[in-house]
Amino acid sequence: MTDTRQKTLDYARQHHEQFLADLKSLIAIPSVSMQDAHKADMQRAAEWLANKLRALGMENVQVLPTAKHPVVFGEWLGAGKGAPTLLIYGHYDVQPVDPLDLWKTQPYEATQQGDLLFGRGASDMKGQVMATLAAVESLVRTAGLPVNVKWLIEGEEEMGSPSMETFLPAHKDLLAADFCLNPDAGMIAADKPTITYGLRGLAYFEVHVWGPNHDLHSGLYGGTIHNPAQALIELIAGMHDAQGRVTLPGFYDAVRPVSAEEHAEMSKLPMDEAFYQAQTGVPALWGEPEYLPVERTSARPTLEVNGFLAGYTGEGSKTVLPARAMAKLSCRLVPDQDAHEVHRQLLRYMEEKAPKTIHWEVKLLNAGPTAITNRHLPAVQAMARAMQAAWGVQPLFKREGGSIPIVALLQRNLGAESILCGAGLPEDNVHAPNERLHLPTWYKAIEAYIHFFYNLA
Amino acid sequence: MTDTRQKTLDYARQHHEQFLADLKSLIAIPSVSMQDAHKADMQRAAEWLANKLRALGMENVQVLPTAKHPVVFGEWLGAGKGAPTLLIYGHYDVQPVDPLDLWKTQPYEATQQGDLLFGRGASDMKGQVMATLAAVESLVRTAGLPVNVKWLIEGEEEMGSPSMETFLPAHKDLLAADFCLNPDAGMIAADKPTITYGLRGLAYFEVHVWGPNHDLHSGLYGGTIHNPAQALIELIAGMHDAQGRVTLPGFYDAVRPVSAEEHAEMSKLPMDEAFYQAQTGVPALWGEPEYLPVERTSARPTLEVNGFLAGYTGEGSKTVLPARAMAKLSCRLVPDQDAHEVHRQLLRYMEEKAPKTIHWEVKLLNAGPTAITNRHLPAVQAMARAMQAAWGVQPLFKREGGSIPIVALLQRNLGAESILCGAGLPEDNVHAPNERLHLPTWYKAIEAYIHFFYNLA
Repeated sequence: MTDTRQKTLDYARQHHEQFLADLKSLIAIPSVSMQDAHKADMQRAAEWLANKLRALGMENVQVLPTAKHPVVFGEWLGAGKGAPTLLIYGHYDVQPVDPLDLWKTQPYEATQQGDLLFGRGASDMKGQVMATLAAVESLVRTAGLPVNVKWLIEGEEEMGSPSMETFLPAHKDLLAADFCLNPDAGMIAADKPTITYGLRGLAYFEVHVWGPNHDLHSGLYGGTIHNPAQALIELIAGMHDAQGRVTLPGFYDAVRPVSAEEHAEMSKLPMDEAFYQAQTGVPALWGEPEYLPVERTSARPTLEVNGFLAGYTGEGSKTVLPARAMAKLSCRLVPDQDAHEVHRQLLRYMEEKAPKTIHWEVKLLNAGPTAITNRHLPAVQAMARAMQAAWGVQPLFKREGGSIPIVALLQRNLGAESILCGAGLPEDNVHAPNERLHLPTWYKAIEAYIHFFYNLA
Repeated sequence: MTDTRQKTLDYARQHHEQFLADLKSLIAIPSVSMQDAHKADMQRAAEWLANKLRALGMENVQVLPTAKHPVVFGEWLGAGKGAPTLLIYGHYDVQPVDPLDLWKTQPYEATQQGDLLFGRGASDMKGQVMATLAAVESLVRTAGLPVNVKWLIEGEEEMGSPSMETFLPAHKDLLAADFCLNPDAGMIAADKPTITYGLRGLAYFEVHVWGPNHDLHSGLYGGTIHNPAQALIELIAGMHDAQGRVTLPGFYDAVRPVSAEEHAEMSKLPMDEAFYQAQTGVPALWGEPEYLPVERTSARPTLEVNGFLAGYTGEGSKTVLPARAMAKLSCRLVPDQDAHEVHRQLLRYMEEKAPKTIHWEVKLLNAGPTAITNRHLPAVQAMARAMQAAWGVQPLFKREGGSIPIVALLQRNLGAESILCGAGLPEDNVHAPNERLHLPTWYKAIEAYIHFFYNLA
């Protein structure tokens, strides 16, 4: 290890208390993006971060307005045109704190108990943003930044990043970067550094089926009218085969197969049957038998029933033959599936299978793209070596079952791949009472980011 | 025709105005059994009927209390032990009148427009009760009653006759009769007198399925957890085969086949495909292809989805993998099926088909017996000949898809078969705004009942 790198790491180790104090200050601002009452707090949190960036010598620092909450921007391009430019992504908004009575500490008064720091946003993701700031501070105060950096810290992630769709194309030049560091993805366990390289996309539908023009008496009409609830049930039941595979025509045509290399890596993840059973309490797992549980939740597409409503669902026994039924269905998609193509597949399925006895309609409510990063990119490998240096073990590579819309938006608008990582742990209670951050892991993440910067240069 | 019979018929024809005035007086009492605000009106309606019975020379007239609303009883046994005893059933309670703004006349101010009398209860069933009273009055004022009669006029039919379950066994001797006249079943059309000889029974279930111990993120778990909504959907879809037959094990074992004679009679009923399509607006009918539509709604058992609730059913696209799902299912049963046996069949089906990936529970909420009357009984034939005399055409025999609990209760407690008839028409708007009675049909029904009494003697 070079002397400068060691100096930077030493700086970080000597400033744990200050980093922690900074994080507590940011947590103290109740920046809940979903609640109008916190509009001023949102602005306050953005200004706080802007000032922090200025203090670190960032230039062109701006709090840029959007239709809803402002975006914090800043940059330092002193490494020159020959050096790569890294975009550091973060969000300063947090989830609401209700139910407040389940919190054991005050959510906006970050409280340390042993290795844990409790507070709203401690893990998701004020702690993660502050870890990148701490790494950059350590570099700036010692050897200087070896690469160019830009910051994109938004205030609407917990609302689904609605402004990013227009903000990114409108600020394409300002944000232009070679790749992006996104520490919002977390790790599998405190001793298992993790790089997430794939995210599933989403196609969310509402399906309506109706037959009679009003609710009928099930005694007078039952047996001769196709019950719309039953018809929709029969249609949905047919959307999976006995092995749990989705039967929409062509559904798997665009699915990128899991490579032998990926399969071998996924086999090493500590997410086996027992893990999923312990997490959920189900009596047995389900799904495509030829894939690992973790492959099924991340590298394979799905079709889920998110909601179903028909007829009478109150107390007692109303003998209604309902006039209509509604289901909310959604597909988690994997590369190279496309939500709009899956919409057409669902329409084709309905055209082929829906009986003549009913009417139907399918609405596409939401379409989110899939994302996958080439794990062999130099920047990804730079992060892998950084994690190895910080934790002493090789990182695990995983694909995530959920969606982070910003990742595909950055790919599409800036051509920038994201390196998805972070110090968040599964037991951090994100979006829930008693959110917490594991400080030893957080300190390791700061060191990993320092290594990452040096590895990029 | 004998002179006395003609005299009785003449009396009836000469008293149309008075019968109509009596009916209007009864309609004016808002005897809504379901609404506590009308408790005093219920008592008033019962007293009104008791006084009417007394005025016709009925003896031992009583307004008998029950847990909810009183029962009107009266009898005349002057025909002697050698003559048969007829129990005349009726109910004086009516459905609520909401939505009031859709009524074109005042619901409790019976209003004649041409051949129609508008008002709540005009058809269901104050008009029907008054037709039996008018027939008995015509007999009492001319030749006298040729048979013994008893009256059972309850106030809870629109609530499902809850008190009858205990009232009938508690008053077995008082109510003892050879058969029962129940004019609550109506006819197919004004020119088609109808005798209903079968009613379907009911077995109503709630089925719960659950898997994970809390709602899950569909992105993180989708593909490896069996969605309880999907599991319940798959189970319910399997409860019918491609021909619309119910697949519960042994479901059809106790079903009495439709005889060639019944089939021939049902073929004559004006309830074909076009009828059901016009009534409901469905694009096509459904059900067991080898049976007529009217056989499927009356002589064949069914399994219906009355309600289904799972997951998120509000606006927008919540990506939840719900922890549980619930369905309300009910079977309409035909002789000789038994609701408790069908409950066991459903349990057996679930034991065989429910996957190991979920937990389930089945609750029986309601069990109602089937009923069928021997159409060749002398009393039924007496009514058939009476209708032929009144309408000039032979009556149609039909089975009803719904349930009238009192019919099976009378069979079970008194051993008395019911002759199900009435002057109600499908277009009478029962249970709806602008309920009405077709007066020419009502007058014919009064004459038919007079003929019936003479035919019984």
